[in-house]
Amino acid sequence: MLKVLKFGGTSVGTLERIQNVANIIKKNKDEGHEVIAVVSAMSGETNKLIEHAQSFSKQPNPVEMDMLLSSGERVTSALLSIALNEQGYKTTSMSGREAGIITDNAHTKARIEDIDTSNIKKSIKEGNTIIVAGFQGVTMDTKRVSTLGRGGSDLSAVAIAGAIGADICEIYTDVDGIYTTDPRIEPKAKKLEKISYDEMLELASLGAKVLQNRSVEMAKKLNVNLVSRSSFTPEVEGTLITKEENIMEKPIVSGIALDKNQIRVGMYGVTDIPGIAASIFSSLADADINVDMIVQTVGVDGKTDLDFTIPSDDFQNCKDVMAKFQKDATKVDYNESICKVSIVGVGMKSHTGVASKAFTALAKENINIRIISTSEIKVSMIVEEKYAELSVRALHEAYNLDK
Amino acid sequence: MLKVLKFGGTSVGTLERIQNVANIIKKNKDEGHEVIAVVSAMSGETNKLIEHAQSFSKQPNPVEMDMLLSSGERVTSALLSIALNEQGYKTTSMSGREAGIITDNAHTKARIEDIDTSNIKKSIKEGNTIIVAGFQGVTMDTKRVSTLGRGGSDLSAVAIAGAIGADICEIYTDVDGIYTTDPRIEPKAKKLEKISYDEMLELASLGAKVLQNRSVEMAKKLNVNLVSRSSFTPEVEGTLITKEENIMEKPIVSGIALDKNQIRVGMYGVTDIPGIAASIFSSLADADINVDMIVQTVGVDGKTDLDFTIPSDDFQNCKDVMAKFQKDATKVDYNESICKVSIVGVGMKSHTGVASKAFTALAKENINIRIISTSEIKVSMIVEEKYAELSVRALHEAYNLDK
Repeated sequence: MLKVLKFGGTSVGTLERIQNVANIIKKNKDEGHEVIAVVSAMSGETNKLIEHAQSFSKQPNPVEMDMLLSSGERVTSALLSIALNEQGYKTTSMSGREAGIITDNAHTKARIEDIDTSNIKKSIKEGNTIIVAGFQGVTMDTKRVSTLGRGGSDLSAVAIAGAIGADICEIYTDVDGIYTTDPRIEPKAKKLEKISYDEMLELASLGAKVLQNRSVEMAKKLNVNLVSRSSFTPEVEGTLITKEENIMEKPIVSGIALDKNQIRVGMYGVTDIPGIAASIFSSLADADINVDMIVQTVGVDGKTDLDFTIPSDDFQNCKDVMAKFQKDATKVDYNESICKVSIVGVGMKSHTGVASKAFTALAKENINIRIISTSEIKVSMIVEEKYAELSVRALHEAYNLDK
Repeated sequence: MLKVLKFGGTSVGTLERIQNVANIIKKNKDEGHEVIAVVSAMSGETNKLIEHAQSFSKQPNPVEMDMLLSSGERVTSALLSIALNEQGYKTTSMSGREAGIITDNAHTKARIEDIDTSNIKKSIKEGNTIIVAGFQGVTMDTKRVSTLGRGGSDLSAVAIAGAIGADICEIYTDVDGIYTTDPRIEPKAKKLEKISYDEMLELASLGAKVLQNRSVEMAKKLNVNLVSRSSFTPEVEGTLITKEENIMEKPIVSGIALDKNQIRVGMYGVTDIPGIAASIFSSLADADINVDMIVQTVGVDGKTDLDFTIPSDDFQNCKDVMAKFQKDATKVDYNESICKVSIVGVGMKSHTGVASKAFTALAKENINIRIISTSEIKVSMIVEEKYAELSVRALHEAYNLDK
């Protein structure tokens, strides 16, 4: 098989951890696989460099930040290459530039525009194991080094796997896969063997530490088979994230996600609702605020209540925007003590009564649902934050996810 | 003026030192100069990376070492660029590749083959102050990053200054210039205002901490005016190293050099001297041993004594080579307790009696000279090591260098 193996910051955090990664690659080579490894900076390095830069400037020039930050991955790729080389394997490190990763000019958060795989292909033919410095590329126009932003090394790996037609892209972190829910909340949570891209995207809160949506979206687009597994327990099989057609036995519900970083905004007694709603949501969009769930209730007096949720990070930003709509409502309030629990599963599409089972389970625990929103493969509910963990456990049990 | 300013490891050793360098560049810009800065890695960084690599392999792959080691200078160039940028100067960092430094394939000790100045020239035209990551280039054939070995950042600076026709190349270290002799030995040593390339090369032992011969040779070849000065006392003018024609008033003697890292090899009672000498010195050359001074004395019995000196580092190596010549002499011995003192000055060429003044000065102190060798601008003498400092002071005084 042609494999892309990606190792995150904690997986290469010390010299011992880098040796451990060399052993994982060695095992794959000895099993007859071709390997392209993609590595992050040693954990802590990137933050150290950011602090250095910020000691000189609160808003350092993004072009220079990329020159600065790209060095960490280069160091890891060279060290890992040296470690493998010592064990008799023919290896070569590659910078993002050398790996042919071409991006737009949005320094510090560049998007991959193209991948020129010629250098990688030539090097594989020469019998090399390739160690790519993740997180970085080179801009199409100015040919300067660029970085891909948060989760950038995962993106490098997925993009290379897609461009080169790898059989699999394994993302190694310190977590051994995707679970039916957060095991710290529900110890009976089970590791999933397989999950579809769409389920993974909806379960983001479960996998946020493991896989960023950006990478999953790219994997879906490029049809890359992703595996989430741990470099700390490489003997444990991880979770395969693949297209729905590859999952024969589709569970109705795959997992329960929890998101505490939500704020509910309530706007009461609005009169001219269509005009106001359009105006509010376009103002929020202009301010880069990601509105999630929206519910609208018409009262007996013909006036309307509007409820919606936003990420906690955007709280102040949202208040600033809402100030100019204060006059259009009898009252605007904010509730930080809420959370969103979601049940996710591709099997929902073909099954009825999935949502009602959730409502029953929460009702049995006297948990009131403030907002509900549904998609083809997800039911999300806003409940009081104090019931967060209880809700997750109740739903986990209701759908027999511990079985 | 178009200036190349080079800052070594201690000059950029901390974030405060980098800020100090930014201030030096700022001052030059404010005086109306164009500036290309060349920077080393922050002191300690390169050694740390070497240790990391050696934890994996005793002889790490040189190609990967270059990928690894080149990162330190990139970090400094980006940080310095950010610091200057913050003060309102338009800046850009450049890797060796971006600065157009093209080398041969001798990784970890590459030689500069060519410099493509187009990128630097274009960037200067756009109004940028350029911060080049020193010590590195890119190989002509494989387009991989290469490093230039010890003193590599100085070489980068001199080569760029030569290629671009800079008016001056200032090498900033923690020493404020070249002295008539080591001030720790002779506190009356005076800083030289100007010195010729050839004198500097002969005075290497005085300037070894400051300027490596490799850089001085390149400066001579490319006719680059070098200045040795300190980033710790930037208000102090340094020493100009330039071509002899630029030095109007040529002192007979410019300085006294001392080299304690020498071993004298004695070979006594050799019969077939021409054949043996040729054989010995070609064997030593094959073993990469740099033989310095050679003296041959024919005894009354027709047998010959041979004396020569080698660097201390090559002691064991030399003994191995000499083993096979043991049979050709009545005795071979080694003396580690010697040193070489040299008087250096371009003015010697046109003055007689320079050497005899040295012999008189040493004789006055009852110091016996074991070997003498002379060149156009230098007289070197081997004396017992215990007289090293006394010899230096006696010679310093004899030529009135403290005046």
